[in-house]
Amino acid sequence: MAKFYGIGTGPGASDLLTVRGKRVLETVDCLYTPEPKKGGKSLALQIVSPYLRADLVIKQRHFPMVNDWKQKRIAWDQIAEEIINDVKEGLNVAFITLGDPMVYSTYSYLLERIMGTIETETVPGISSFCQISNSLQVPLVIDEESYAVLPATADELIIRQALTHFSTVVLMKVSIALPKILGLLREHDLTEKTVMVSDASMEGSRIQWDVLEVEEDTKLSYFTTMIVYKNRNLTARKSETSL
Amino acid sequence: MAKFYGIGTGPGASDLLTVRGKRVLETVDCLYTPEPKKGGKSLALQIVSPYLRADLVIKQRHFPMVNDWKQKRIAWDQIAEEIINDVKEGLNVAFITLGDPMVYSTYSYLLERIMGTIETETVPGISSFCQISNSLQVPLVIDEESYAVLPATADELIIRQALTHFSTVVLMKVSIALPKILGLLREHDLTEKTVMVSDASMEGSRIQWDVLEVEEDTKLSYFTTMIVYKNRNLTARKSETSL
Repeated sequence: MAKFYGIGTGPGASDLLTVRGKRVLETVDCLYTPEPKKGGKSLALQIVSPYLRADLVIKQRHFPMVNDWKQKRIAWDQIAEEIINDVKEGLNVAFITLGDPMVYSTYSYLLERIMGTIETETVPGISSFCQISNSLQVPLVIDEESYAVLPATADELIIRQALTHFSTVVLMKVSIALPKILGLLREHDLTEKTVMVSDASMEGSRIQWDVLEVEEDTKLSYFTTMIVYKNRNLTARKSETSL
Repeated sequence: MAKFYGIGTGPGASDLLTVRGKRVLETVDCLYTPEPKKGGKSLALQIVSPYLRADLVIKQRHFPMVNDWKQKRIAWDQIAEEIINDVKEGLNVAFITLGDPMVYSTYSYLLERIMGTIETETVPGISSFCQISNSLQVPLVIDEESYAVLPATADELIIRQALTHFSTVVLMKVSIALPKILGLLREHDLTEKTVMVSDASMEGSRIQWDVLEVEEDTKLSYFTTMIVYKNRNLTARKSETSL
C-alpha cells in the first residue's frame, strides 16, 4: 500500500542522514520539499540530493514563514491535501525536513492534517545541537546531569529557570533574540561557558568559543545555536578542537 | 593518519545508524565494544552487525556498571591506553555506543582520556527518546515550546522544575526510580500526559499510553523512557498509532 514518509535530513551534511532515511528516499515516487526563499534548491533538498534517483518527481512547495497564522494554515491545508491525493492514487511520497521531524518542524502541522487519512511513517534525524556537541566532542550530559532545549524566543522566565537548574542548556535560533540571550547569559555569569555555532556541519560552519565578546547587533545566520555547558571546561577543549 | 572514531549506533534498529557511521564502520581495522553482562553479543554490536566486514577485529571490553568509581576509572584507563596504542601502531579504531555518544554515554570517559594523544572524531546517533517521538508521531516541541531531558535519578527539585516549566519532559532510565517518578507525575497531575516506552525500535518494544495504572513495583527493561507531553492530546493519538 502506498505511504507517506516524513524524513529528518539531519543538520546539514548529507552523510548524517540515517540509513533508513536514505533507503526511503531511494524508493519513493515523489518528494515534497519546502521551497527556498529566493529560488534555487532548498537546503533540505541539497542535503539529500546524493541519494535521489534521476526520475524522482520533486514538488517544491511554498511554506509561508510569516506571523500570519491564517496564511500558514491555508498553505498547510493545500499541501496536505495534495500529498493525500498523491498517496491515494498509489504513489509513495516523502517530505523532508531539517534536523529531526519532531523538533521544531513545520512537518508537525502537515502530519496533523494527514494522519488518519493515509498510512504515515516518520524517520528521525540528528538535531543540529547534537551534531555540534559531537563535532566539539564536548558531552551534552553525563551521569546525573540534565539538559534543556529552548528557542531563543522563549519566555525569559523559562530561560532563567533552565540556566539556573540545568547542567546544559541549548538555545536554538539565537539570531532572532540575540540581545536578550546575551543579557541573560551575562546575568548568570555564563558567557565563558557558552559556545555559539552557526550552520553546524554545513559549508562555512562557524564557531565562537566564549560569547563574552559577541556584539548585540551581530548579524548571525538563521541556523545559529548556543550551547551553555555549565559543567565543562571549555578553555581546555578550545585548544584541542576544530569543527 | 590513523584515527579513533566514536560512533553512536542510535536506539536499536540497525538502519537508524547514520550513513557516516556506517561508512566508518565499513572502513576501520578494529572495533571496540562494551562487553555484555552474560556473554553473547553486546547490544551495540548487534545493531551494527549488518555493516561489519568479516575480517574486522572485534575487541569486546568490560565496562563495570557499578558505583565504585575507582574500579570504573581503572577500566577506562586500561581501555583508553589499549586504543591509543592501536591507533599509534597505525590502526583505524572505532568504538560504538548506544544512542548518541554525547548523551549519557560511558564513551565520554574514554574520550576524555584519549583526546589530545591521537586524532579523534565523534559521529552522532539518534537518541532513544527522539526515536520514540518519531515512532509515535507526537512532536517533542513546536513553535515556542521547550523540552527537558533528565535521568530518573536526578534530584526531585529539578524534576519538579522541569514538570512545571517545560512543555515536554523526557525521563530516561525510569526503571531505576519508578516509584519516585510515578509519585512526581501524580503530584503534577500528568499521568495522562505521559507515555512510557521500553526498548524503543528494538524487537519486543513495548508502549504504555497513560501511566496512571503502572504499578510501582513493575519490572521494567533498563531501556525504559517516559515522555511527558503536556501540550499534546495523547488520547487522540493512541487510537491512530502503533509502534
